[in-house]
Amino acid sequence: MPHIQLPEGLPGILGPLAISPDTSKALLELAEVLLRGPNTLTSAEREIIATYVSSRNECQFCQLSHGAAAAAHLGGDYELIDRVKSDYASADISEKLKALLAIAGKVQKGGKNVTTQDVERARALGATDKEIHDTVLIAAAFCMFNRYVDGLGTWQPDDPRAYLEMGQRMAHEGYGRASRKVPVEAAQLAAGAQ
Amino acid sequence: MPHIQLPEGLPGILGPLAISPDTSKALLELAEVLLRGPNTLTSAEREIIATYVSSRNECQFCQLSHGAAAAAHLGGDYELIDRVKSDYASADISEKLKALLAIAGKVQKGGKNVTTQDVERARALGATDKEIHDTVLIAAAFCMFNRYVDGLGTWQPDDPRAYLEMGQRMAHEGYGRASRKVPVEAAQLAAGAQ
Repeated sequence: MPHIQLPEGLPGILGPLAISPDTSKALLELAEVLLRGPNTLTSAEREIIATYVSSRNECQFCQLSHGAAAAAHLGGDYELIDRVKSDYASADISEKLKALLAIAGKVQKGGKNVTTQDVERARALGATDKEIHDTVLIAAAFCMFNRYVDGLGTWQPDDPRAYLEMGQRMAHEGYGRASRKVPVEAAQLAAGAQ
Repeated sequence: MPHIQLPEGLPGILGPLAISPDTSKALLELAEVLLRGPNTLTSAEREIIATYVSSRNECQFCQLSHGAAAAAHLGGDYELIDRVKSDYASADISEKLKALLAIAGKVQKGGKNVTTQDVERARALGATDKEIHDTVLIAAAFCMFNRYVDGLGTWQPDDPRAYLEMGQRMAHEGYGRASRKVPVEAAQLAAGAQ
Protein backbone atom coordinates (compact mmCIF):
# COMPACT_ATOMS: atom_id res chain seq x y z
CA MET A 1 0.00 0.00 0.00
CA PRO A 2 1.40 3.40 -0.95
CA HIS A 3 1.72 5.86 1.96
CA ILE A 4 -0.46 8.42 0.12
CA GLN A 5 -3.24 8.07 -2.41
CA LEU A 6 -1.80 7.42 -5.86
CA PRO A 7 -3.47 6.49 -9.18
CA GLU A 8 -3.85 2.72 -9.50
CA GLY A 9 -1.92 0.79 -12.10
CA LEU A 10 1.02 3.18 -12.29
CA PRO A 11 4.19 1.52 -10.99
CA GLY A 12 7.02 3.23 -9.13
CA ILE A 13 7.71 6.88 -9.83
CA LEU A 14 4.85 7.15 -12.35
CA GLY A 15 2.25 7.46 -9.57
CA PRO A 16 3.88 10.40 -7.73
CA LEU A 17 4.77 12.04 -11.06
CA ALA A 18 1.11 11.90 -12.08
CA ILE A 19 -0.16 13.69 -8.97
CA SER A 20 2.44 16.46 -8.93
CA PRO A 21 2.82 17.96 -12.42
CA ASP A 22 4.79 21.01 -11.26
CA THR A 23 7.61 18.99 -9.70
CA SER A 24 7.38 16.27 -12.39
CA LYS A 25 8.34 18.71 -15.11
CA ALA A 26 11.68 19.52 -13.47
CA LEU A 27 12.33 15.88 -12.48
CA LEU A 28 11.70 14.58 -16.01
CA GLU A 29 13.81 17.34 -17.56
CA LEU A 30 16.63 16.38 -15.24
CA ALA A 31 16.35 12.68 -16.16
CA GLU A 32 16.22 13.53 -19.86
CA VAL A 33 19.31 15.76 -19.89
CA LEU A 34 21.29 13.52 -17.52
CA LEU A 35 20.58 10.23 -19.30
CA ARG A 36 19.81 11.16 -22.92
CA GLY A 37 21.24 14.66 -23.46
CA PRO A 38 24.37 15.28 -25.58
CA ASN A 39 27.32 13.76 -23.73
CA THR A 40 30.64 12.01 -24.31
CA LEU A 41 29.33 9.22 -22.04
CA THR A 42 26.88 7.05 -23.97
CA SER A 43 23.30 6.75 -22.75
CA ALA A 44 24.04 3.09 -22.02
CA GLU A 45 26.93 4.11 -19.73
CA ARG A 46 24.80 6.71 -17.96
CA GLU A 47 21.88 4.29 -17.51
CA ILE A 48 24.36 1.74 -16.11
CA ILE A 49 25.51 4.29 -13.51
CA ALA A 50 21.85 5.01 -12.63
CA THR A 51 21.07 1.29 -12.39
CA TYR A 52 24.10 0.57 -10.23
CA VAL A 53 23.26 3.34 -7.73
CA SER A 54 19.60 2.25 -7.63
CA SER A 55 20.73 -1.30 -6.96
CA ARG A 56 22.93 -0.10 -4.06
CA ASN A 57 19.91 1.76 -2.69
CA GLU A 58 17.85 -1.43 -3.17
CA CYS A 59 15.18 0.42 -5.14
CA GLN A 60 13.52 -2.29 -7.17
CA PHE A 61 11.56 -0.07 -9.54
CA CYS A 62 14.54 2.12 -10.46
CA GLN A 63 17.09 -0.65 -10.84
CA LEU A 64 14.78 -2.79 -13.01
CA SER A 65 13.45 0.06 -15.17
CA HIS A 66 16.80 1.78 -15.72
CA GLY A 67 18.48 -1.62 -16.07
CA ALA A 68 15.98 -2.38 -18.85
CA ALA A 69 16.74 1.01 -20.44
CA ALA A 70 20.50 0.34 -20.28
CA ALA A 71 19.98 -3.10 -21.85
CA ALA A 72 17.74 -1.56 -24.53
CA HIS A 73 20.59 0.78 -25.48
CA LEU A 74 22.84 -2.29 -25.76
CA GLY A 75 20.57 -4.35 -28.00
CA GLY A 76 19.06 -6.31 -25.11
CA ASP A 77 22.15 -7.39 -23.14
CA TYR A 78 20.42 -7.98 -19.79
CA GLU A 79 23.15 -10.31 -18.58
CA LEU A 80 25.68 -7.49 -18.66
CA ILE A 81 23.41 -5.34 -16.49
CA ASP A 82 22.98 -8.13 -13.94
CA ARG A 83 26.76 -8.61 -13.88
CA VAL A 84 27.35 -4.87 -13.29
CA LYS A 85 24.96 -4.95 -10.33
CA SER A 86 26.48 -8.06 -8.74
CA ASP A 87 30.20 -7.41 -9.48
CA TYR A 88 31.04 -4.64 -11.92
CA ALA A 89 34.80 -5.29 -11.66
CA SER A 90 34.29 -8.55 -13.58
CA ALA A 91 31.81 -7.11 -16.09
CA ASP A 92 32.65 -6.56 -19.75
CA ILE A 93 32.69 -2.74 -19.52
CA SER A 94 35.52 -0.24 -19.98
CA GLU A 95 38.04 0.42 -17.21
CA LYS A 96 36.96 4.07 -17.35
CA LEU A 97 33.35 3.13 -16.62
CA LYS A 98 34.52 0.93 -13.74
CA ALA A 99 36.36 3.92 -12.26
CA LEU A 100 33.25 6.08 -12.68
CA LEU A 101 31.11 3.39 -11.00
CA ALA A 102 33.55 3.44 -8.07
CA ILE A 103 32.90 7.19 -7.73
CA ALA A 104 29.15 6.66 -8.08
CA GLY A 105 29.27 4.03 -5.33
CA LYS A 106 31.02 6.50 -3.02
CA VAL A 107 28.43 9.20 -3.77
CA GLN A 108 25.65 6.72 -3.00
CA LYS A 109 26.98 6.43 0.56
CA GLY A 110 27.49 10.18 0.87
CA GLY A 111 29.31 12.84 -1.14
CA LYS A 112 32.21 13.22 1.30
CA ASN A 113 33.34 9.66 0.57
CA VAL A 114 34.73 10.60 -2.86
CA THR A 115 38.52 10.96 -2.64
CA THR A 116 41.14 12.70 -4.77
CA GLN A 117 42.46 9.22 -5.56
CA ASP A 118 39.08 8.06 -6.89
CA VAL A 119 38.97 11.05 -9.21
CA GLU A 120 42.63 10.76 -10.29
CA ARG A 121 42.09 7.12 -11.16
CA ALA A 122 39.09 7.94 -13.34
CA ARG A 123 41.03 10.75 -15.00
CA ALA A 124 44.03 8.48 -15.68
CA LEU A 125 41.64 6.09 -17.44
CA GLY A 126 40.41 8.87 -19.71
CA ALA A 127 37.49 10.46 -17.84
CA THR A 128 37.06 14.19 -18.40
CA ASP A 129 36.05 16.69 -15.73
CA LYS A 130 32.59 16.91 -17.31
CA GLU A 131 32.22 13.11 -17.21
CA ILE A 132 33.24 13.07 -13.53
CA HIS A 133 30.76 15.90 -12.86
CA ASP A 134 27.99 14.03 -14.64
CA THR A 135 28.77 10.78 -12.84
CA VAL A 136 28.52 12.52 -9.46
CA LEU A 137 25.27 14.20 -10.46
CA ILE A 138 23.70 11.03 -11.90
CA ALA A 139 24.58 9.14 -8.71
CA ALA A 140 23.25 11.99 -6.55
CA ALA A 141 20.07 12.27 -8.64
CA PHE A 142 19.33 8.57 -8.24
CA CYS A 143 19.75 8.90 -4.48
CA MET A 144 16.84 11.33 -4.89
CA PHE A 145 14.72 9.29 -7.33
CA ASN A 146 15.19 6.10 -5.27
CA ARG A 147 14.11 7.86 -2.06
CA TYR A 148 11.13 9.46 -3.82
CA VAL A 149 9.94 6.07 -5.10
CA ASP A 150 10.54 4.14 -1.86
CA GLY A 151 9.71 6.95 0.60
CA LEU A 152 6.13 7.04 -0.68
CA GLY A 153 5.77 3.26 -0.60
CA THR A 154 4.92 3.04 -4.32
CA TRP A 155 3.73 -0.14 -6.01
CA GLN A 156 6.70 -1.89 -7.70
CA PRO A 157 6.18 -5.02 -9.81
CA ASP A 158 8.48 -7.92 -8.90
CA ASP A 159 8.65 -9.45 -12.38
CA PRO A 160 11.56 -8.01 -14.41
CA ARG A 161 9.47 -8.65 -17.56
CA ALA A 162 7.13 -5.90 -16.37
CA TYR A 163 9.95 -3.41 -17.02
CA LEU A 164 11.06 -4.44 -20.51
CA GLU A 165 8.61 -2.33 -22.49
CA MET A 166 9.16 0.58 -20.09
CA GLY A 167 12.92 0.35 -20.57
CA GLN A 168 12.52 0.40 -24.36
CA ARG A 169 10.42 3.55 -24.13
CA MET A 170 12.80 5.23 -21.67
CA ALA A 171 15.77 4.45 -23.92
CA HIS A 172 14.27 5.32 -27.28
CA GLU A 173 11.49 7.83 -26.62
CA GLY A 174 12.86 9.54 -23.55
CA TYR A 175 11.60 10.69 -20.20
CA GLY A 176 9.00 13.18 -21.29
CA ARG A 177 6.93 10.74 -23.29
CA ALA A 178 7.59 7.69 -21.11
CA SER A 179 5.97 9.42 -18.17
CA ARG A 180 2.87 10.52 -19.99
CA LYS A 181 2.02 7.07 -21.31
CA VAL A 182 0.24 4.69 -19.02
CA PRO A 183 2.45 1.58 -19.05
CA VAL A 184 -0.38 -0.79 -19.81
CA GLU A 185 1.76 -3.78 -20.67
CA ALA A 186 3.74 -3.39 -17.45
CA ALA A 187 0.62 -3.19 -15.36
CA GLN A 188 -0.89 -6.24 -17.06
CA LEU A 189 2.25 -8.31 -16.64
CA ALA A 190 2.62 -7.29 -13.03
CA ALA A 191 -1.02 -8.06 -12.31
CA GLY A 192 -0.59 -11.48 -13.89
CA ALA A 193 2.49 -12.14 -11.78
CA GLN A 194 0.79 -11.40 -8.49
CA MET B 1 40.51 21.69 -3.49
CA PRO B 2 37.52 20.76 -5.65
CA HIS B 3 37.80 17.39 -7.40
CA ILE B 4 37.27 19.01 -10.82
CA GLN B 5 38.07 22.47 -12.18
CA LEU B 6 35.43 24.94 -11.02
CA PRO B 7 35.25 28.76 -11.31
CA GLU B 8 36.98 30.45 -8.36
CA GLY B 9 35.02 32.44 -5.82
CA LEU B 10 31.75 30.53 -6.25
CA PRO B 11 30.88 28.62 -3.07
CA GLY B 12 29.10 25.26 -2.89
CA ILE B 13 26.67 24.35 -5.63
CA LEU B 14 27.24 27.60 -7.53
CA GLY B 15 30.49 26.30 -9.05
CA PRO B 16 29.04 23.09 -10.54
CA LEU B 17 25.89 24.95 -11.62
CA ALA B 18 28.05 27.44 -13.52
CA ILE B 19 29.88 24.79 -15.55
CA SER B 20 26.82 22.71 -16.47
CA PRO B 21 24.02 24.99 -17.70
CA ASP B 22 21.90 22.17 -19.13
CA THR B 23 21.59 20.30 -15.84
CA SER B 24 21.48 23.56 -13.82
CA LYS B 25 18.26 24.62 -15.49
CA ALA B 26 16.38 21.54 -14.28
CA LEU B 27 18.01 21.62 -10.82
CA LEU B 28 17.11 25.28 -10.24
CA GLU B 29 13.56 24.77 -11.51
CA LEU B 30 13.20 21.91 -9.05
CA ALA B 31 14.49 24.03 -6.15
CA GLU B 32 12.22 26.92 -7.12
CA VAL B 33 9.03 24.88 -7.33
CA LEU B 34 9.84 22.76 -4.26
CA LEU B 35 10.80 25.64 -1.97
CA ARG B 36 8.99 28.70 -3.34
CA GLY B 37 6.17 27.40 -5.54
CA PRO B 38 2.49 27.62 -4.48
CA ASN B 39 2.02 25.29 -1.52
CA THR B 40 0.06 24.93 1.72
CA LEU B 41 3.43 24.50 3.46
CA THR B 42 5.10 27.89 3.85
CA SER B 43 8.47 28.51 2.24
CA ALA B 44 9.92 28.79 5.76
CA GLU B 45 8.63 25.28 6.58
CA ARG B 46 10.00 23.86 3.33
CA GLU B 47 13.40 25.54 3.82
CA ILE B 48 13.46 24.12 7.37
CA ILE B 49 12.95 20.60 5.98
CA ALA B 50 15.74 21.22 3.44
CA THR B 51 18.04 22.57 6.16
CA TYR B 52 17.34 19.69 8.51
CA VAL B 53 18.10 17.03 5.87
CA SER B 54 21.27 18.89 4.81
CA SER B 55 22.33 19.01 8.43
CA ARG B 56 21.81 15.24 8.78
CA ASN B 57 23.91 14.78 5.65
CA GLU B 58 26.52 17.12 7.17
CA CYS B 59 26.59 19.32 4.08
CA GLN B 60 27.87 22.65 5.37
CA PHE B 61 27.03 24.74 2.31
CA CYS B 62 23.44 23.51 2.03
CA GLN B 63 22.59 23.63 5.71
CA LEU B 64 24.01 27.15 6.15
CA SER B 65 22.58 28.62 2.93
CA HIS B 66 19.12 27.05 3.27
CA GLY B 67 19.18 27.75 7.01
CA ALA B 68 19.80 31.40 6.16
CA ALA B 69 16.94 31.30 3.64
CA ALA B 70 14.61 29.76 6.24
CA ALA B 71 15.60 32.45 8.76
CA ALA B 72 15.12 35.16 6.13
CA HIS B 73 11.53 33.95 5.65
CA LEU B 74 11.09 34.22 9.44
CA GLY B 75 12.40 37.76 9.83
CA GLY B 76 15.91 36.64 10.81
CA ASP B 77 15.20 33.99 13.46
CA TYR B 78 18.52 32.13 13.21
CA GLU B 79 18.20 30.70 16.71
CA LEU B 80 15.10 28.74 15.70
CA ILE B 81 17.00 27.19 12.78
CA ASP B 82 19.88 26.17 15.04
CA ARG B 83 17.39 24.63 17.46
CA VAL B 84 15.69 22.65 14.68
CA LYS B 85 19.04 21.23 13.63
CA SER B 86 20.14 20.26 17.14
CA ASP B 87 16.79 19.06 18.56
CA TYR B 88 13.65 19.83 16.56
CA ALA B 89 11.37 18.20 19.16
CA SER B 90 12.09 21.12 21.51
CA ALA B 91 11.92 23.82 18.83
CA ASP B 92 9.09 26.35 18.63
CA ILE B 93 7.54 24.88 15.48
CA SER B 94 4.17 23.21 14.88
CA GLU B 95 3.57 19.59 15.81
CA LYS B 96 2.69 18.96 12.17
CA LEU B 97 6.10 20.23 11.04
CA LYS B 98 7.76 18.02 13.66
CA ALA B 99 5.93 14.99 12.23
CA LEU B 100 7.03 15.98 8.71
CA LEU B 101 10.63 16.38 9.91
CA ALA B 102 10.44 12.85 11.32
CA ILE B 103 9.47 11.60 7.85
CA ALA B 104 12.23 13.69 6.25
CA GLY B 105 14.76 12.20 8.66
CA LYS B 106 13.69 8.70 7.65
CA VAL B 107 13.98 9.55 3.95
CA GLN B 108 17.48 10.92 4.55
CA LYS B 109 18.57 7.46 5.72
CA GLY B 110 16.73 5.73 2.85
CA GLY B 111 13.18 5.76 1.51
CA LYS B 112 12.26 2.35 2.87
CA ASN B 113 12.57 3.63 6.45
CA VAL B 114 9.33 5.60 6.23
CA THR B 115 6.54 3.66 7.97
CA THR B 116 2.76 3.74 7.83
CA GLN B 117 2.87 4.97 11.42
CA ASP B 118 5.09 7.95 10.51
CA VAL B 119 2.62 8.95 7.81
CA GLU B 120 -0.47 8.38 9.96
CA ARG B 121 1.02 10.55 12.70
CA ALA B 122 1.64 13.41 10.27
CA ARG B 123 -1.87 13.03 8.88
CA ALA B 124 -3.41 13.05 12.37
CA LEU B 125 -1.61 16.35 12.99
CA GLY B 126 -3.14 17.88 9.88
CA ALA B 127 -0.72 17.03 7.08
CA THR B 128 -2.33 16.47 3.67
CA ASP B 129 -1.22 13.83 1.16
CA LYS B 130 0.32 16.59 -0.97
CA GLU B 131 2.28 17.91 2.03
CA ILE B 132 3.55 14.39 2.78
CA HIS B 133 4.48 13.98 -0.90
CA ASP B 134 6.32 17.28 -0.91
CA THR B 135 8.15 16.50 2.33
CA VAL B 136 9.40 13.20 0.91
CA LEU B 137 10.49 14.89 -2.31
CA ILE B 138 12.22 17.82 -0.57
CA ALA B 139 14.11 15.38 1.67
CA ALA B 140 15.01 13.21 -1.34
CA ALA B 141 16.06 16.24 -3.40
CA PHE B 142 18.41 17.44 -0.67
CA CYS B 143 19.97 13.99 -0.54
CA MET B 144 20.82 14.79 -4.17
CA PHE B 145 21.90 18.43 -3.72
CA ASN B 146 24.05 17.55 -0.68
CA ARG B 147 25.81 14.74 -2.59
CA TYR B 148 26.33 16.97 -5.63
CA VAL B 149 27.95 19.69 -3.49
CA ASP B 150 30.10 17.35 -1.38
CA GLY B 151 30.83 14.72 -4.05
CA LEU B 152 32.68 17.31 -6.14
CA GLY B 153 34.62 18.64 -3.15
CA THR B 154 33.32 22.20 -3.63
CA TRP B 155 34.63 25.20 -1.67
CA GLN B 156 32.33 25.90 1.30
CA PRO B 157 32.91 28.93 3.55
CA ASP B 158 33.00 28.12 7.28
CA ASP B 159 31.67 31.47 8.47
CA PRO B 160 27.84 31.44 8.72
CA ARG B 161 27.93 35.21 7.97
CA ALA B 162 29.06 34.31 4.46
CA TYR B 163 25.60 32.83 3.84
CA LEU B 164 23.35 35.61 5.14
CA GLU B 165 23.14 37.65 1.95
CA MET B 166 22.80 34.43 -0.07
CA GLY B 167 19.90 33.27 2.13
CA GLN B 168 18.14 36.62 1.66
CA ARG B 169 18.40 36.30 -2.11
CA MET B 170 17.30 32.64 -2.10
CA ALA B 171 14.27 33.50 0.04
CA HIS B 172 13.18 36.69 -1.67
CA GLU B 173 14.46 36.52 -5.25
CA GLY B 174 14.39 32.77 -5.79
CA TYR B 175 16.62 30.13 -7.25
CA GLY B 176 16.82 31.35 -10.81
CA ARG B 177 18.31 34.73 -9.96
CA ALA B 178 20.31 33.61 -6.94
CA SER B 179 22.34 31.30 -9.13
CA ARG B 180 23.11 33.81 -11.81
CA LYS B 181 24.52 36.41 -9.42
CA VAL B 182 28.08 36.05 -8.26
CA PRO B 183 27.82 36.11 -4.46
CA VAL B 184 30.49 38.76 -4.03
CA GLU B 185 29.74 39.51 -0.39
CA ALA B 186 29.89 35.83 0.50
CA ALA B 187 33.21 35.38 -1.25
CA GLN B 188 34.67 38.48 0.45
CA LEU B 189 33.51 37.43 3.89
CA ALA B 190 34.78 33.93 3.39
CA ALA B 191 38.13 35.18 2.11
CA GLY B 192 38.41 37.45 5.18
CA ALA B 193 37.62 34.56 7.47
CA GLN B 194 40.34 32.27 6.08
